[in-house]
Amino acid sequence: MRKIYSAAGLCCLLLNSIAAIAQPSSPLKRARDYGLINGILPTGQWNAITDVNGVKIGHTTVLKGDSIRTGVTVIMPHTGNIFQEKVPAAVFVGNGFGKSIGTTQIVELGNIETPIALTNTLNAPIVANAIIDYTLQQKGNEEVRSVNAVVGETNDGYLNDIRGRHVTATDVRKAIDSAASGPVAEGCIGAGTGTICMGFKGGIGTSSRKLGPQQGAYTVGVLVQTNFGGILTINGAPIGRELNNYYMQKTKRHEADGSCMIIIATDAPLSARNLERLARRSFLAFGKVGSFSSNGSGDYSIAFSTHPQLRIPFSKKDKSVREIPDLENDDMSPLFLAVVEATEEAIYNSLFMATDTKGYHGNTVKAMPVEKVVELLKKYGALNQDKLP
Amino acid sequence: MRKIYSAAGLCCLLLNSIAAIAQPSSPLKRARDYGLINGILPTGQWNAITDVNGVKIGHTTVLKGDSIRTGVTVIMPHTGNIFQEKVPAAVFVGNGFGKSIGTTQIVELGNIETPIALTNTLNAPIVANAIIDYTLQQKGNEEVRSVNAVVGETNDGYLNDIRGRHVTATDVRKAIDSAASGPVAEGCIGAGTGTICMGFKGGIGTSSRKLGPQQGAYTVGVLVQTNFGGILTINGAPIGRELNNYYMQKTKRHEADGSCMIIIATDAPLSARNLERLARRSFLAFGKVGSFSSNGSGDYSIAFSTHPQLRIPFSKKDKSVREIPDLENDDMSPLFLAVVEATEEAIYNSLFMATDTKGYHGNTVKAMPVEKVVELLKKYGALNQDKLP
Amino acid sequence: MRKIYSAAGLCCLLLNSIAAIAQPSSPLKRARDYGLINGILPTGQWNAITDVNGVKIGHTTVLKGDSIRTGVTVIMPHTGNIFQEKVPAAVFVGNGFGKSIGTTQIVELGNIETPIALTNTLNAPIVANAIIDYTLQQKGNEEVRSVNAVVGETNDGYLNDIRGRHVTATDVRKAIDSAASGPVAEGCIGAGTGTICMGFKGGIGTSSRKLGPQQGAYTVGVLVQTNFGGILTINGAPIGRELNNYYMQKTKRHEADGSCMIIIATDAPLSARNLERLARRSFLAFGKVGSFSSNGSGDYSIAFSTHPQLRIPFSKKDKSVREIPDLENDDMSPLFLAVVEATEEAIYNSLFMATDTKGYHGNTVKAMPVEKVVELLKKYGALNQDKLP
Amino acid sequence: MRKIYSAAGLCCLLLNSIAAIAQPSSPLKRARDYGLINGILPTGQWNAITDVNGVKIGHTTVLKGDSIRTGVTVIMPHTGNIFQEKVPAAVFVGNGFGKSIGTTQIVELGNIETPIALTNTLNAPIVANAIIDYTLQQKGNEEVRSVNAVVGETNDGYLNDIRGRHVTATDVRKAIDSAASGPVAEGCIGAGTGTICMGFKGGIGTSSRKLGPQQGAYTVGVLVQTNFGGILTINGAPIGRELNNYYMQKTKRHEADGSCMIIIATDAPLSARNLERLARRSFLAFGKVGSFSSNGSGDYSIAFSTHPQLRIPFSKKDKSVREIPDLENDDMSPLFLAVVEATEEAIYNSLFMATDTKGYHGNTVKAMPVEKVVELLKKYGALNQDKLP
Repeated sequence: MRKIYSAAGLCCLLLNSIAAIAQPSSPLKRARDYGLINGILPTGQWNAITDVNGVKIGHTTVLKGDSIRTGVTVIMPHTGNIFQEKVPAAVFVGNGFGKSIGTTQIVELGNIETPIALTNTLNAPIVANAIIDYTLQQKGNEEVRSVNAVVGETNDGYLNDIRGRHVTATDVRKAIDSAASGPVAEGCIGAGTGTICMGFKGGIGTSSRKLGPQQGAYTVGVLVQTNFGGILTINGAPIGRELNNYYMQKTKRHEADGSCMIIIATDAPLSARNLERLARRSFLAFGKVGSFSSNGSGDYSIAFSTHPQLRIPFSKKDKSVREIPDLENDDMSPLFLAVVEATEEAIYNSLFMATDTKGYHGNTVKAMPVEKVVELLKKYGALNQDKLP
Repeated sequence: MRKIYSAAGLCCLLLNSIAAIAQPSSPLKRARDYGLINGILPTGQWNAITDVNGVKIGHTTVLKGDSIRTGVTVIMPHTGNIFQEKVPAAVFVGNGFGKSIGTTQIVELGNIETPIALTNTLNAPIVANAIIDYTLQQKGNEEVRSVNAVVGETNDGYLNDIRGRHVTATDVRKAIDSAASGPVAEGCIGAGTGTICMGFKGGIGTSSRKLGPQQGAYTVGVLVQTNFGGILTINGAPIGRELNNYYMQKTKRHEADGSCMIIIATDAPLSARNLERLARRSFLAFGKVGSFSSNGSGDYSIAFSTHPQLRIPFSKKDKSVREIPDLENDDMSPLFLAVVEATEEAIYNSLFMATDTKGYHGNTVKAMPVEKVVELLKKYGALNQDKLP
Repeated sequence: MRKIYSAAGLCCLLLNSIAAIAQPSSPLKRARDYGLINGILPTGQWNAITDVNGVKIGHTTVLKGDSIRTGVTVIMPHTGNIFQEKVPAAVFVGNGFGKSIGTTQIVELGNIETPIALTNTLNAPIVANAIIDYTLQQKGNEEVRSVNAVVGETNDGYLNDIRGRHVTATDVRKAIDSAASGPVAEGCIGAGTGTICMGFKGGIGTSSRKLGPQQGAYTVGVLVQTNFGGILTINGAPIGRELNNYYMQKTKRHEADGSCMIIIATDAPLSARNLERLARRSFLAFGKVGSFSSNGSGDYSIAFSTHPQLRIPFSKKDKSVREIPDLENDDMSPLFLAVVEATEEAIYNSLFMATDTKGYHGNTVKAMPVEKVVELLKKYGALNQDKLP
Repeated sequence: MRKIYSAAGLCCLLLNSIAAIAQPSSPLKRARDYGLINGILPTGQWNAITDVNGVKIGHTTVLKGDSIRTGVTVIMPHTGNIFQEKVPAAVFVGNGFGKSIGTTQIVELGNIETPIALTNTLNAPIVANAIIDYTLQQKGNEEVRSVNAVVGETNDGYLNDIRGRHVTATDVRKAIDSAASGPVAEGCIGAGTGTICMGFKGGIGTSSRKLGPQQGAYTVGVLVQTNFGGILTINGAPIGRELNNYYMQKTKRHEADGSCMIIIATDAPLSARNLERLARRSFLAFGKVGSFSSNGSGDYSIAFSTHPQLRIPFSKKDKSVREIPDLENDDMSPLFLAVVEATEEAIYNSLFMATDTKGYHGNTVKAMPVEKVVELLKKYGALNQDKLP
């Protein structure tokens, strides 16, 4: 399944532009395909955010000429009209040096009422306006006069002509219309087209964890847009230092700034309060991979629950009190572990699936040298750790 | 001076549209012109946010045909390049059911780097993009690739075709270019064109307070965009109940929802932490006038300091440590009183200076009946309270 | 009913000390007994926090010698074992210059697991330890090894020898054991024994509001410990200025600092998120009465729901997911109005029911001169406003 | 130097009790003594929080009979009267399931005015009261009537008779009086006497980082009280899994709950806002070592600056505006890296320096088996990583 998926991701990129993003010598594979297994929990079927029932992902990659390397990625919390059936949600701000849109209403009302879109920093308002377009035009929303568009962003200005704001409303609509369940394309695609992660080409990554029946059999899925700096550590192996590519090294400039967006979906019946706690834990994974959330890194986690009984109806309803399921605080811990593991692996996938990219001003960012990295992972015993006693 | 100003405000409206907004039978006057003096502190010269040195206000009123009643108001924290010389700032969210843009970065970095724009709810992203345009195009910002546009909004969808998002980038630019110090036009202008406040026509209002030399001689200026519901109380007089126009009354529908934006400027040398505390106090004034911050009311306060030594330079500076003045916590109390008084009076001004407005779907909102209100204020001893022992 | 209650309150004080607190010339009456009716909603049966089913209040007043004027007040969220059946709860910090204990766990877990105690600033830890004593000793809690005691405080150091920390574990236990439903003693009692409110003797006050059947028939009850400064305004009448007793007046020193604790109970089925929103609104009432939340005023609101289906069991339960009722965001507004009205009236009651007090260092604080105040209220049309059209 | 220090730590324990805590077969050594070097930055002289000039640490270990295994650790921000010269400070709550005292005032006022004490959960109020004692009794504080005692805690109830609250005011005073600069005793001492960390005996640990001259030559020091669960990972090596001792393993119960206190000192001239950002980053280290901040883990970080010009005087000062140094946001990143590295190493030290402990109910917790761990660290290439290219 993964092979098909990898090919699909690659293909998608090739259709957009052959020149901009170098074709790797061998097919791209995800971290787990190399035996890189972080943590102790099993993944869902696709090892993707789409393992959470109903969640769909769509990408539009915007590659034009020499200097446009950007795009948009949308996360659809469910397959219906999201405005009419809002989902409980929360935000954790790891570092607020960012331009995310829609956060205060999520915090206040504890819900999300639109698709979530990720894009580049300066494009955030245009993409938010496109999300409003989409919502106003949806059947059933004819009388809607207030929409809280949710948009996250990271800064791809090193590889992309970011001042040009090249992601259009059409691009956003295309991403929404093409959103699908199943495997998710990763790496240099959508909002990850022009991003950089700890000195290497970053991008979109995803992963999931599935709890056992005793822990409720819940799924936690994560999708990341990686664009931050640090000292790359993979499953404990000091990759950044071994490859001499890390923050504060002496010989060349390695930017620590950039940002990371973390989107978390779960089918567990969580209140907005416990979704915020879940979101907060994703920050821990951020530390594991070598980030220290530098000053210029806008790091946001957005979590939502897809549990069908938790949907919040918009149009007038019979009663003002809903009976809803609510997971106890005491049973949150396995979900916390799941979100840390899935976030960590999603970040790895964003690196493993990215390819060399040349863009704005001739700037080039190399993908992580996977072969060397795999050797180093072996050297540090970081592969096949699931076979430990 | 006030006469000139009132005429100017009126004139501005007339130029835009004679039909949409009824010409009042007598010239509009501000609350204080009727002897309505709330609190104990004196005002600044203009009794406006522009009493804070360097602050400029610009409006673009967008009136078209039968159903477009909206606009944009910009607050310029100083007269220079704001991105290159950021100002310390903070946000308090009274009720986050709103679409304000730019809040998380203000909180994280403690500063504002663009003009602040107010507009209607669905227009917020377009206006944010226009603020980015403005910033990117400014001389000296050629290399800027990240801009935190700050936009507030309230929902004018009862009087305005809000789904049409009729405020354009050109409108925003016009407001910026026309921004001026001195008297500020109030009422149905700019972002206040289509708003409703506690059952009457709301709009833009402003006021200021000036502390005595023993309290540091600081000025606090406030500008509000009023669009919220409640039980109108003016300087203690139960106006809403006397006029039978209030939330939860039995005979007609009075919407409590709507929102209020409160922008606070001061020349006091405050850290972002103390600016947040200042912003939080403005919420108290909100209670005084009869609001209870209903579920649907998105209420945000944004505060900034114009103190010249507190400007944060963007382009590379000599040293990483600045020596800055910082007002002690212990000396904040007079500023807290000042912001409560100025916010309260700014809200009154938004009501006194508004005029009957007909708009979208033929909906009409009457201005507060000033003559009756003045009578009621007299009845309740709410005028000329500065002459108390 | 109120007469009995007032007599009870008075009696209680007399038993403690005749000398310390002057006997008023006529029986104390609550604000409403004078025709002072703020807002538009009806009260519950007792116009007290105890109108919320199951809530009990207990006071221990500590009056000794010339200089000990303090005490403790406890709020029991329900009549059972609170640790074993926690209640959903939230905190809003209006101004965090205070020593409240237990807040971070309330915020994180969204619940309260002990009685809430109010006392003086320096006594907070001793009272918290007494709350732990009580909890550890309760039947059923033999294995409990973690208790989040919730304690609020204000500073009675002008009238009380606060450095002596004279409230003991025994006093706390007495307050818990004597806690009762029904009318609540107010004024100089329990934690209100030595407090000062806007230049007059403050203390404990309480009030409630009851929503109509269309709004869910919910009750909101509030209890306050008033000890803050400002410019006293009663139902809009400028009492502080008329009586020449207010912050920043020229002739004498009026301390604005002090603090206010606001405890809110409701039987509405609210999540912790909506309880926090409810708590935030109480701050608005604080503005109405003339406070501006001065630098030194530690102002905290704690809200909890008594809804029986929302109780959170501690000992091991059958299932990890509870089905709970949850009031929609859209139906919160009447509760918001209720909390503002009840908080305002509770503050008034704390003033009307207080008596002249002499204490530490011979310091004396006069009660609000009720007769004069009633005259002023009449002058300003602030009485019998429920009879407005 | 380290040898002397290690001996001192050991000696200290022996003086308290020989029986309770097993004497290790060989002298205890810190992580770095085994070649375990995490990160890229150099340490300060003592590799301890005391490398920040003026910071002093004191411990009282309370070991009695079979079941009392607890204590108190105090952190003195400077050597003077802390109440009279407060230090700028901030709090980050990683998980608020804890009983820390004093947090809201730190957040509001941005400072700390007492020593910081760490102890066991149920002892927090008694220790807070002892801190008040100390402050009231200090010369110069005769008129002080409000003290914000700062106390953190973790739950040592598995090894300690926690319900007995055996840490007394005398113990606190002893810790304060014995506080010293220089090497810091670690492991089973003070507040770390009865704690458990990821399946092994935890305790007190400390570490520091020193930035180069180009980054301002600032020092960041961290002290931790470790008592949390997870899947122990040391410098990337999967120790917990290799040793078959981790959360959610099948064969035995490994509690994930517990808590972690992280105290951070720096001499960098940071505002409270940037201190909060620094504190937030320490949470990232928490992830690196294998924690996922389980539901029951109360995780708090408290940061303060010792910069002499940032001290906030209490008694009346000449002027209300101080001129203070303030490090730019842009220059925070190296400090963020430093706090992540120092927190991680402090946690390791708490494990390396702990010893087998038997206590309450005969419960026993083994120290981490250092020899085996070192072998595993070698196997995973986790030692001597500073020698990487």
